[in-house]
Amino acid sequence: MIVVMRSGCSKADVQHVVKLIQELGLKDHVIEGTDRTVVAAIGDKRHLDMGAIENAPMVDRMVPILAPYKVASREVSPEPSVIPMGQGATVGGKKIAVIAGPCSVESEKQVIEVAQKVKAAGADALRGGAFKPRTNPYDFQGLGEEGLKLLAKARDETGLAVVTELMSIDQVDMVAEYADVLQIGTRNMHNFNLLMAAGKTDRTVLLKRGWSATLAEFLLAAEYIINEGNKNVILCERGIRTHESYVRNTLPLAIIPAIKRESHLPIVIDPSQGTGHSYMVPAMSRAAVAAGADGLIIEVHPDPQHALTDGGQSITPDQFSDLMDSLRQIAPAVDRTV
Amino acid sequence: MIVVMRSGCSKADVQHVVKLIQELGLKDHVIEGTDRTVVAAIGDKRHLDMGAIENAPMVDRMVPILAPYKVASREVSPEPSVIPMGQGATVGGKKIAVIAGPCSVESEKQVIEVAQKVKAAGADALRGGAFKPRTNPYDFQGLGEEGLKLLAKARDETGLAVVTELMSIDQVDMVAEYADVLQIGTRNMHNFNLLMAAGKTDRTVLLKRGWSATLAEFLLAAEYIINEGNKNVILCERGIRTHESYVRNTLPLAIIPAIKRESHLPIVIDPSQGTGHSYMVPAMSRAAVAAGADGLIIEVHPDPQHALTDGGQSITPDQFSDLMDSLRQIAPAVDRTV
Amino acid sequence: MIVVMRSGCSKADVQHVVKLIQELGLKDHVIEGTDRTVVAAIGDKRHLDMGAIENAPMVDRMVPILAPYKVASREVSPEPSVIPMGQGATVGGKKIAVIAGPCSVESEKQVIEVAQKVKAAGADALRGGAFKPRTNPYDFQGLGEEGLKLLAKARDETGLAVVTELMSIDQVDMVAEYADVLQIGTRNMHNFNLLMAAGKTDRTVLLKRGWSATLAEFLLAAEYIINEGNKNVILCERGIRTHESYVRNTLPLAIIPAIKRESHLPIVIDPSQGTGHSYMVPAMSRAAVAAGADGLIIEVHPDPQHALTDGGQSITPDQFSDLMDSLRQIAPAVDRTV
Amino acid sequence: MIVVMRSGCSKADVQHVVKLIQELGLKDHVIEGTDRTVVAAIGDKRHLDMGAIENAPMVDRMVPILAPYKVASREVSPEPSVIPMGQGATVGGKKIAVIAGPCSVESEKQVIEVAQKVKAAGADALRGGAFKPRTNPYDFQGLGEEGLKLLAKARDETGLAVVTELMSIDQVDMVAEYADVLQIGTRNMHNFNLLMAAGKTDRTVLLKRGWSATLAEFLLAAEYIINEGNKNVILCERGIRTHESYVRNTLPLAIIPAIKRESHLPIVIDPSQGTGHSYMVPAMSRAAVAAGADGLIIEVHPDPQHALTDGGQSITPDQFSDLMDSLRQIAPAVDRTV
Repeated sequence: MIVVMRSGCSKADVQHVVKLIQELGLKDHVIEGTDRTVVAAIGDKRHLDMGAIENAPMVDRMVPILAPYKVASREVSPEPSVIPMGQGATVGGKKIAVIAGPCSVESEKQVIEVAQKVKAAGADALRGGAFKPRTNPYDFQGLGEEGLKLLAKARDETGLAVVTELMSIDQVDMVAEYADVLQIGTRNMHNFNLLMAAGKTDRTVLLKRGWSATLAEFLLAAEYIINEGNKNVILCERGIRTHESYVRNTLPLAIIPAIKRESHLPIVIDPSQGTGHSYMVPAMSRAAVAAGADGLIIEVHPDPQHALTDGGQSITPDQFSDLMDSLRQIAPAVDRTV
Repeated sequence: MIVVMRSGCSKADVQHVVKLIQELGLKDHVIEGTDRTVVAAIGDKRHLDMGAIENAPMVDRMVPILAPYKVASREVSPEPSVIPMGQGATVGGKKIAVIAGPCSVESEKQVIEVAQKVKAAGADALRGGAFKPRTNPYDFQGLGEEGLKLLAKARDETGLAVVTELMSIDQVDMVAEYADVLQIGTRNMHNFNLLMAAGKTDRTVLLKRGWSATLAEFLLAAEYIINEGNKNVILCERGIRTHESYVRNTLPLAIIPAIKRESHLPIVIDPSQGTGHSYMVPAMSRAAVAAGADGLIIEVHPDPQHALTDGGQSITPDQFSDLMDSLRQIAPAVDRTV
Repeated sequence: MIVVMRSGCSKADVQHVVKLIQELGLKDHVIEGTDRTVVAAIGDKRHLDMGAIENAPMVDRMVPILAPYKVASREVSPEPSVIPMGQGATVGGKKIAVIAGPCSVESEKQVIEVAQKVKAAGADALRGGAFKPRTNPYDFQGLGEEGLKLLAKARDETGLAVVTELMSIDQVDMVAEYADVLQIGTRNMHNFNLLMAAGKTDRTVLLKRGWSATLAEFLLAAEYIINEGNKNVILCERGIRTHESYVRNTLPLAIIPAIKRESHLPIVIDPSQGTGHSYMVPAMSRAAVAAGADGLIIEVHPDPQHALTDGGQSITPDQFSDLMDSLRQIAPAVDRTV
Repeated sequence: MIVVMRSGCSKADVQHVVKLIQELGLKDHVIEGTDRTVVAAIGDKRHLDMGAIENAPMVDRMVPILAPYKVASREVSPEPSVIPMGQGATVGGKKIAVIAGPCSVESEKQVIEVAQKVKAAGADALRGGAFKPRTNPYDFQGLGEEGLKLLAKARDETGLAVVTELMSIDQVDMVAEYADVLQIGTRNMHNFNLLMAAGKTDRTVLLKRGWSATLAEFLLAAEYIINEGNKNVILCERGIRTHESYVRNTLPLAIIPAIKRESHLPIVIDPSQGTGHSYMVPAMSRAAVAAGADGLIIEVHPDPQHALTDGGQSITPDQFSDLMDSLRQIAPAVDRTV
């Protein structure tokens, strides 16, 4: 941490900061520049609230030097992690993992049909929501346990791993019973109690970035899970909130090289939520693979015009199959397979 | 809902949309403009996923007409609601409610001292965190139930209502036992299970806006609580995420007139979280009152330079007392008292 | 400037950075922390592109220490500047300056009527656009020189200083001939050639913040003007682009205390552009004054429903007069007058 | 345009809106919904300020139906435009156009060396700045006309078309004399006088999106150019301002399919400005091609660690050459060549 003093500070002001730093058990190091004095605080202070020093007289601001995350960082684990999804599928290796399926589980017919078709097109896992986090309390909230049973049945018929969202600590046991991968959605990325509960299971967790979370907050959320003993975390980017209105969310693909540099965890892209429009999904799926994504999670519905949720961003099984063909052409350019 | 067709659509394309609208039990109304055809869907469709129609051929986009919220809206309850906070204090009436106290409860001495001082300066309620939602798992997480007991003790000594945050459904009963007002923080505004659990208690809920939530999402979160039977909801703005870096959050005070127009619920402003810097807190508190806020929630710490959390944005009891004096001058200009 | 090395860098990596710093004529200072090494570069390097060092091996990132602005800063001029607007009016002193008038000059009758009414209500200056920066080329573009003449006529009749926008370097002489204050709009804050041309005149410049400019960029734009010899710069905040949709722009009033801390230049708030909705203008005007603004610039139109531009955000002369009354009540709380 | 009335409006309120619509020469069409009444205004009203109606009693808001842009739209020109860049190169056809070169022209040796190397690697055009729009007035401002001459010399030696930025209307003639393509930068996208001046030349214009411009504003800026008679406009996305801090700008690649749907103009991506970090440039270049971009504009410097500007985001000629190899593998997947 670097404390930047204001211009014109006195020696006493600097000494006051030095004393605050020492009280925290850290070593101080004063540098007098031509215009400003800065005081470096040396030592691991991730657990301290250094911000309090900002309130000292003549302090301009605090500049953190160390990244706040540890166990999710590349410094701790230099090699990329390959995370199992169940049913033999993995994320983070040479093969790009493709997770596909409907936004919501609506019926047995729907989910089995989609599962078979995405399997035939080359998907590695089936997504589908049984518990739906709906902004609007009047919207369809999902089939609940019945939906989980249908997903498990689809797995039995296709061999696809099942990825499904859970929204609350009291759903963890039930969802873990049926699913291979527990999805924590964007609205719950900062639901720390849920993160910790998922960290106590033996299921892989797919963690979506909060729609205005920073990269550091995203990795710290992963650390909440890992610190409970569960190392199997997959990161997922699903778009952020910006001023843009031609998309429902802005999909920042530069997070892929950023995560590769900062973390050993794999990163999966959601082009469906990440744009909100089905016509953009193929282009952004291709872009994600070309940018080095470890996987994709795509909404596929047999009849998007009659979908109960997210019809506007779902593609059909035929569109999905065409998309997979083009991904197979792109993957070798980044030394991957699909 | 208005369906805007793309330019050059055929009569069959329009008929296809008409049919989709009718299938949803709604009435259609086609308007042919000079360049574009639009189809209005008439009827209450808050519970339907109209977005699916976007996937129909030659549909450009959907334009919602009705606001998605109901029971929080001014249409349903034209009169402003006055919400009890406990201990005789209310929010939403002529008197502006001031909630003040430390970010975290750290010790009996700290919380009692602050409570007495903010009470003396004219505060209506005491804030203080026992369970802290920390982005960083290595940061101080709060004193838990011990902190709640200290808050209750401070209430006994001062008569101030106690406002404190809860983060998870398994904390609801415990927090409701000690606190007058349950605070749901910005990170949990979309934690629907927590909203519903708070809605089943008889405690007033102070609901903070998610840092990138829209106004509609904010009011819908309030409806999750109200729909469970708890009408006592106080809205709280605490700043949004933007590109600005001289603040920790951008505090959008125009939400005050917007909420007054759209909703009957009172709105309270948090200038501490809303800026992240103690030196900005007095100016933004005054601005909030002048803009018509129903209340303020302010972080006050006896020794901000040694605060365990949020020291950088806490003001001292003396600064708080001076601030209250200036608020008393401003309030009459907006026909309020402090 | 601080260069933060990546974890695991070698002594040679650090020496390479030291050499780059020395080549730039700066002094280096290496600090070895527990996890990271940082290298401080000491000396005034505002004119150097230190970013290039980021490309050196094992460099993580650069952290600037000095603010990039100088002559606009409080370090250079500790006392607040009082800027003349012409016709005896000033901005930055005890009296809050109120600039009011129509978005566009539409006719002699309109502009004279508004000028007389805002003068009667207590305004210090008249705003009105003769050259309009329109996003849409098909929109009304202003009356041009004819509009300038009408503004000058309104000044003659009322004694109000005239504030009007110029958009291009070839308009500078003409606008300076008629106007007291040259307004540079949000879309031109980064039009450096226009800033420099305005800096060569003897007219005061009202500089609006770009709708996504940082505070540093805003002050640097002011320095472009000041460095040409024109010290009379008034800063104006008119709202930023965010995800919010209930406003046309988000008005970040915390910039007022921030500017007061960083700069000696006065800051004026535009609640009309800053919200986009007339119903919000009174509340945000009051809030701006309570937050310490040095002035307001408000759109007033005799018949907003028939305004050629910005009717949605204009208030009537009667509403303006009521607003001025309430501002007179608030100003004393911040030791100001209106 | 749709006028949405507030709930509880009277027949007189609706009639008042109908009258305002008729006064504007438009046809009205009233639809009474179950909760709300809306009034459609039929006719082409791109040149009218309909916003004024918002100020009428009981009007909730205005919803535009028609896109504001015309000549840049796909409705007017259904076929994609292929735009000449000079020297035989084009943008918008099957071949993806690659524009590469240094941020600033620094010396003859530098620009000739880069030109030869990017030519050898397969680039179609040379970029290089002679006039630099610098946020900071103390930064290097470019070599001016001397730089233009060096660019022209590099063209003579390599046959590459020259793309360079102009910042002011008084530079148009000079830059047009030396350059093949006039670049208008992000800071000037709303400098309408400059857009119109460029529209009067016979040079192709590369128009960068303002860093917080909407898609509609971007296309309207193109229309300012086209309406002056110059149809040769290339759109360029270079990243937007968001809350993200691991990039200098957030690069929203979904604008590629959006532009393809809305406009006939080609779209080029700038991954250098679009991220701000050289290590991200290859990944984002590949992603742009996979998403369907018509071209790339990339900063290449022979010695980024000593670049006078933008060293942190420049790649070396060797890195550029490797990148081109991988683009050649990806392009066929989207039916393109490089």
